[in-house]
Amino acid sequence: MRFKCIVEYDGTDFHGWQVQPNARTVQAELEDAIRRMLGESPRVLAAGRTDAGVHAAGQVVSFTLQRAISSEALQRGLNALSPRDVAIRAVEVVDDAFDPRRAARSRVYVYRIWNAGWISPFWRRYTWHVSRPLNVDAMRAGAQWLLGEHDFSSFRAAGCDAEHAVRRLLRSEVEQRAEMITYTIEATAFLRHMVRNIVGTLVEVGAGERAADGLAALLAARDRTLAGATAPASGLCLTEVKY
Amino acid sequence: MRFKCIVEYDGTDFHGWQVQPNARTVQAELEDAIRRMLGESPRVLAAGRTDAGVHAAGQVVSFTLQRAISSEALQRGLNALSPRDVAIRAVEVVDDAFDPRRAARSRVYVYRIWNAGWISPFWRRYTWHVSRPLNVDAMRAGAQWLLGEHDFSSFRAAGCDAEHAVRRLLRSEVEQRAEMITYTIEATAFLRHMVRNIVGTLVEVGAGERAADGLAALLAARDRTLAGATAPASGLCLTEVKY
Repeated sequence: MRFKCIVEYDGTDFHGWQVQPNARTVQAELEDAIRRMLGESPRVLAAGRTDAGVHAAGQVVSFTLQRAISSEALQRGLNALSPRDVAIRAVEVVDDAFDPRRAARSRVYVYRIWNAGWISPFWRRYTWHVSRPLNVDAMRAGAQWLLGEHDFSSFRAAGCDAEHAVRRLLRSEVEQRAEMITYTIEATAFLRHMVRNIVGTLVEVGAGERAADGLAALLAARDRTLAGATAPASGLCLTEVKY
Repeated sequence: MRFKCIVEYDGTDFHGWQVQPNARTVQAELEDAIRRMLGESPRVLAAGRTDAGVHAAGQVVSFTLQRAISSEALQRGLNALSPRDVAIRAVEVVDDAFDPRRAARSRVYVYRIWNAGWISPFWRRYTWHVSRPLNVDAMRAGAQWLLGEHDFSSFRAAGCDAEHAVRRLLRSEVEQRAEMITYTIEATAFLRHMVRNIVGTLVEVGAGERAADGLAALLAARDRTLAGATAPASGLCLTEVKY
């Protein structure tokens, strides 16, 4: 039986999703919980391979078990055996051929910026703390330029192994509520560090160091050295994968 | 100069507000930060003496300094010297006679219940995890009975040192959003463990173990042994003090 699970994790104390030697990863924790619960060792695949420190509220993972088990019993068992910073929100049975990465139509990420001279103890682990005042209208205007299909080479990290850099952005929205500025981005797929590089650039727009309409030229330039610095992982959260 | 500060803290790793020997408390941390910043040792008073493990998003504290200093410099300095689980949201100069406890017109507390078979890693420290299904409509009906002026002896902890148990409830609201059930309560003042004892009772109503209209008889009985168990501190947060 093949299962699809929606998984949440606090990425702070993880070296990202993917199994690596001598590092604590979410994939390794889930595979370990399955092994301890059922004595089986399936490979657990995820829709998005989040980097070190990145959080997930709606990661989708999938794996195949030899043993027949109900979704409810699997969820209960895995939650009991997972560490405190990982939780299984939901479990369902899927087709044997289901690939959570290839089948995904789009992914939604949220990036949170805490914009004040002080930082809330409740949000410290889940935001990027930016003290200097940011012009949210300018950031919103800048974010608009990214909508639709573009070559995102200017926002692509050096180690990215994607075949090409063309991606389609379905949402690119900046919202503010008191001290919190939230950037929501939805795309068919993402390049390595793409969201964090976009956010680093939008914060420069908000700080008045870069014009909002400069993002059009930046896309056209296809040159990573022209974009802003990579925003910290702590503010980023994979919130939803759509199928 | 006398200052009024709005303070946030994650209560998880504190033995409450008030200074105690050999225990980490918020009052001790703030007094220590003031001493290290300015070399002065004023007593810091709070609007509400929160118990061990209880959080605050809008605690109000006050203290008098001999030295003249701007509110901005005081906020910046105290935030730099406070531990990561305490933050100063705002600072203002007040009248020399200001007493944050006596001057308060009302206090607002929020109690969060995570009602699902699984618990989000993001909410684990800030909720009470209740797995069994709760009927929110019944809880809402029960909460209504508490509005207005009553003798709350049935919800008063043994060690409470208040002179009498009559309190006026201005708000008593249950809301639900996905897995989160939020109880908001506002009163002129509170008795020891009053909110947590009310929540413990409302959860019994939600679980079908107690009738919603039983809360009227419970108030009338003025007997702590008839109410529900005290809900855990982790779900409770002092969100606002009104003047």
